[in-house]
Amino acid sequence: MKALVYLGPHQKALEDRPKPVITAATDAIVKMTRTTICGTDLHILRGDVPTCTPGRILGHEGVGIVETVGSAVTAFKAGDPVLISCVSACGQCANCRRQMYSHCSTGGWILGNRIDGTQAEFVRIPHADMSLYPIPAGADEEALVLLSDILPTAMECGVLNGRVQPGSTVAIVGSGPIGLAALLTAQFYAPAEIIMIDLDDGRLAVAKRFGATATLNSGNGQAADAVMQLTGQRGVDTAIEAVGVPATFELCQQIVAAGGTIANVGVHGVKVDLHLENLWDRNITITTRLVDTVSTPMLLKTLCAHQLDPKPLITHRFKLDQILDAYETFAHAAETHALKVLIEA
Amino acid sequence: MKALVYLGPHQKALEDRPKPVITAATDAIVKMTRTTICGTDLHILRGDVPTCTPGRILGHEGVGIVETVGSAVTAFKAGDPVLISCVSACGQCANCRRQMYSHCSTGGWILGNRIDGTQAEFVRIPHADMSLYPIPAGADEEALVLLSDILPTAMECGVLNGRVQPGSTVAIVGSGPIGLAALLTAQFYAPAEIIMIDLDDGRLAVAKRFGATATLNSGNGQAADAVMQLTGQRGVDTAIEAVGVPATFELCQQIVAAGGTIANVGVHGVKVDLHLENLWDRNITITTRLVDTVSTPMLLKTLCAHQLDPKPLITHRFKLDQILDAYETFAHAAETHALKVLIEA
Amino acid sequence: MKALVYLGPHQKALEDRPKPVITAATDAIVKMTRTTICGTDLHILRGDVPTCTPGRILGHEGVGIVETVGSAVTAFKAGDPVLISCVSACGQCANCRRQMYSHCSTGGWILGNRIDGTQAEFVRIPHADMSLYPIPAGADEEALVLLSDILPTAMECGVLNGRVQPGSTVAIVGSGPIGLAALLTAQFYAPAEIIMIDLDDGRLAVAKRFGATATLNSGNGQAADAVMQLTGQRGVDTAIEAVGVPATFELCQQIVAAGGTIANVGVHGVKVDLHLENLWDRNITITTRLVDTVSTPMLLKTLCAHQLDPKPLITHRFKLDQILDAYETFAHAAETHALKVLIEA
Amino acid sequence: MKALVYLGPHQKALEDRPKPVITAATDAIVKMTRTTICGTDLHILRGDVPTCTPGRILGHEGVGIVETVGSAVTAFKAGDPVLISCVSACGQCANCRRQMYSHCSTGGWILGNRIDGTQAEFVRIPHADMSLYPIPAGADEEALVLLSDILPTAMECGVLNGRVQPGSTVAIVGSGPIGLAALLTAQFYAPAEIIMIDLDDGRLAVAKRFGATATLNSGNGQAADAVMQLTGQRGVDTAIEAVGVPATFELCQQIVAAGGTIANVGVHGVKVDLHLENLWDRNITITTRLVDTVSTPMLLKTLCAHQLDPKPLITHRFKLDQILDAYETFAHAAETHALKVLIEA
Repeated sequence: MKALVYLGPHQKALEDRPKPVITAATDAIVKMTRTTICGTDLHILRGDVPTCTPGRILGHEGVGIVETVGSAVTAFKAGDPVLISCVSACGQCANCRRQMYSHCSTGGWILGNRIDGTQAEFVRIPHADMSLYPIPAGADEEALVLLSDILPTAMECGVLNGRVQPGSTVAIVGSGPIGLAALLTAQFYAPAEIIMIDLDDGRLAVAKRFGATATLNSGNGQAADAVMQLTGQRGVDTAIEAVGVPATFELCQQIVAAGGTIANVGVHGVKVDLHLENLWDRNITITTRLVDTVSTPMLLKTLCAHQLDPKPLITHRFKLDQILDAYETFAHAAETHALKVLIEA
Repeated sequence: MKALVYLGPHQKALEDRPKPVITAATDAIVKMTRTTICGTDLHILRGDVPTCTPGRILGHEGVGIVETVGSAVTAFKAGDPVLISCVSACGQCANCRRQMYSHCSTGGWILGNRIDGTQAEFVRIPHADMSLYPIPAGADEEALVLLSDILPTAMECGVLNGRVQPGSTVAIVGSGPIGLAALLTAQFYAPAEIIMIDLDDGRLAVAKRFGATATLNSGNGQAADAVMQLTGQRGVDTAIEAVGVPATFELCQQIVAAGGTIANVGVHGVKVDLHLENLWDRNITITTRLVDTVSTPMLLKTLCAHQLDPKPLITHRFKLDQILDAYETFAHAAETHALKVLIEA
Repeated sequence: MKALVYLGPHQKALEDRPKPVITAATDAIVKMTRTTICGTDLHILRGDVPTCTPGRILGHEGVGIVETVGSAVTAFKAGDPVLISCVSACGQCANCRRQMYSHCSTGGWILGNRIDGTQAEFVRIPHADMSLYPIPAGADEEALVLLSDILPTAMECGVLNGRVQPGSTVAIVGSGPIGLAALLTAQFYAPAEIIMIDLDDGRLAVAKRFGATATLNSGNGQAADAVMQLTGQRGVDTAIEAVGVPATFELCQQIVAAGGTIANVGVHGVKVDLHLENLWDRNITITTRLVDTVSTPMLLKTLCAHQLDPKPLITHRFKLDQILDAYETFAHAAETHALKVLIEA
Repeated sequence: MKALVYLGPHQKALEDRPKPVITAATDAIVKMTRTTICGTDLHILRGDVPTCTPGRILGHEGVGIVETVGSAVTAFKAGDPVLISCVSACGQCANCRRQMYSHCSTGGWILGNRIDGTQAEFVRIPHADMSLYPIPAGADEEALVLLSDILPTAMECGVLNGRVQPGSTVAIVGSGPIGLAALLTAQFYAPAEIIMIDLDDGRLAVAKRFGATATLNSGNGQAADAVMQLTGQRGVDTAIEAVGVPATFELCQQIVAAGGTIANVGVHGVKVDLHLENLWDRNITITTRLVDTVSTPMLLKTLCAHQLDPKPLITHRFKLDQILDAYETFAHAAETHALKVLIEA
């Protein structure tokens, strides 16, 4: 089968690989119909993710059709259309029992990282009963691809950890795909204000269309002042960090109100400064999280109830044959204005 | 001044009464510009509220202008436009410290009950700093009248106690003003389904316009079956009781899903049956609450942010001179289709 | 093998039955070393539990040694000493994902109810990975038997649902084994007062030794007055109903403070009166729950840390051969002063 | 009257100052009977607290007798014995309404900082109704002095923010007075393990007596390894930082388990490194807090219920005349083994 393979830092290829087979009774093999590329895949390609070794098929998102299931799989059978979770979970270990599936002792984020992933014609899904979701009849499969990772990540790491509430004031630092997904899911809670901050006016224009009440280009170094002005010098109840570099985490510390929360979503490669000399008495909460995908059933319900329309996040469409082009388009978002690129079988 | 006075069961009159005066340093006198009539006022007129004795000026809702303040009032001064909370709170007793203002040791729901109320030209407001709210510039005062009682009641007793969540399934039993206010505020949390139940098709039609995803006329005695069918025999996550009679509480018990919540909002005059023989192992939560008005600041923010539009609840408008007509209109809602009637100075 | 079999209302016998076998890949067969009798077993014998049909081996508590495991069991192997949970859970259905194992779509409380139970030489445990717990080295196996049901039930349905907090005031209505287990686990949260109420002075004396700060014999019909007096007419923050009859639920309604919680633990056979005419404005929460056994890992930790000493609940010891005597002793607790009776292999 | 006055960095004197007078209707004047010295007073004396200017009477802890009250004070009268909260709160501003009294718009920690404090014969207490507590009959006044600041600080910033739970594993970094107070209040929640870490073996010996399940001297640089070993390489559920320097915050990051909480209590003068490159995917929560003293009523209840015995924290006793000696003793704790020093009128 065709598969996009990581070959080491800055190297990848569309290769021919053997079709995966069931290796545990709880496995399923899924024939992919749609997948996409994540910012994390670009991190891997820069060599930043040591758990992902050369030879690995990339990808941890997508929808498909169950091809075969292991003998212990009870919730799915061949022919079922399924959504694939980016996180595999046994449901039974100590971390799974507290719904922290991201730290499952035999799962977590392993797809396209520690085991072969979804940017291929077929994929093996461990712990299939917990890691696949039936696709409701009539659901839009393109929109569903966004429920593998980006929407639960934004919802859980950003919105839920950030305790967004009716009437509250939210700033989202970073208006890329994950920041925009946070913008969409924050609106489940009717906050009074959502301020989107980015360096790219094009992405801020998208944010306006997606429901931002204010947008700020932080290129002038005045974003913190502008947020304080917008909030009557109070700061924001929730600051969602959706970039992953020291400067954006610094900005979050400058704009969070007393009693507020900084919810980190970004993937950080280096340490940051934490200004406890200013924050020790400010009643601040800071959270980090790898998505647990506990919100996936809820997101499926809101999608089917038309409370959520993530499809405008998809800006480009490719066939699996063209996946190298898709990577190019996604990696050069400033020029291509790409948000999420869809890859069809 | 003119005032609507309760004279005993089934008796009321628009009388001339002396203008109220400051009696404690924390009081304010407010000149009323708008008030309204609550279902609870009708309860009083039926003689059902023993704490309200003949001679009492009725009314616990409204907006106005501060006329004078006591020496210990710091947040308001003469001339300030204010929203009046139906609950008076000292902010300092043991119950106020846990934000249970409804059970303030020297406050709670006393306006138009234990002390003279707002259906008059002027009203004395005890604990003014905690019991009045500044009206934001540009806010619609008609809509604000609904924030005195009906919206925080629906939000706190129904939606917050009912733990409405994104993707969840809600039934609201009773589509009168309070049920419709619950319908409006439930939408802050993006539930997947909100089923409205009533005996009056007219009110159900209003519910549809206000955002109900389904409506059921319970007149045929099949409402429970219909809800179970709509929810795949699962029942609802949240059942909000917004009527206050045994039959509607019974219905809530029939339709609540395992793990769900029955949030009582209705004012009950008699005991009900609780079917613990069915519910003891169903992981159900039942809540009761007199509104604490802790959500009022949040509701003001959502109103100003255009996240909330309660004004369509106002169906009729009267002058204070016509308040007896207003009572007639409100008391015969089946014929007049009245929801909330506004009374202007 | 020997097994205690339910033969219909008021009939039981110690019979010879075939040893159970693995019927699903997720099953384990456990050789019982210790079991006990639950109040629910007496309910079954009175014919009150229609899901339990004649021919059923009773019992849902115990510890033992794993004999064999199905092919999909990964956490246990033959020879492992294990604690058996009274609730079987797949860990993967919608209810299990929200940790409501009691309502697992293929589990819940089925042992000794819908399938054969633990009052036998061997038992088949479905969903073994989720429904068994490894016994920590050095743990006292007698004490562990109490972690199958009675301690998690008291903890979850009573203490956690009742939101017992440091400094709070708790009343536990019923000083039988489950009420005493609630008394033990309530002390995890350092409440200021725990008032135990029962009709039996002997059990109240036990409660005193177990840490009750006050005891009340409700036989004189003055218990509500006495509680109000003990609490300065405020009532209790938490009332735990641990009997299961209308009179005790009534008492809970009389003594709960505004803002308080009634946590039902008792198994009710008939409906009760709910005095919404008094409680609608009292900000009360009422909860019901079938134990989910989510607290079992925590209870194991507190037991090993010597924060919990449930062993004094065991008053009598029998061999499996003598289980009919054990039932007699347990069923006539007023005379025998039995709390929990231990049955050893 | 006699008063301990801050005269600028490293300068203080016992001076004669005028007795304070009522300046607002909500004030009370309290005649001090007992006070103490806080680590924060030493910070002020090092010049680290710019809000505290030369000429200020220090001290924010103590008990006394009400001398006079302003006209708007309703809860207290002359002659009442009172506990003084270190935080003054109006109870009515937006932050007070959310129980974040530490950030009261006209209060917060102002005593002995922005206004004159308690290390004097008399003190003026603003917002007296909210900032004083009646002393229960028979309470030990020495123990009560510890409820002004150190116990609510340890409880709220450490134990409550750290979400200590039955069965959980806690490390407290710093075994000084505040760390020991965290150790005492953590035991309200029956954690399975409390590991105390310090550089001073004497303080660790005290910690053992106060209930620590393990103690570690971090002087060898191996504390993180030792904690990981004690916890089976899992780390701790809650790490309480009770020192306030970068090294101890660093240690907390090394020992916190996935899904755990770092609750900062220490007063930090410089920024720290936050290792988001390791923690971004570890589901960590970090909290900061200035004590809100919302736990004071609860602590009073637990003290009266003998659930809490903080008195052993008092190691030395002085008269107000000897307060300079008391400062010497407290400032040289390594030699004097001082924890809290009591200063009596």
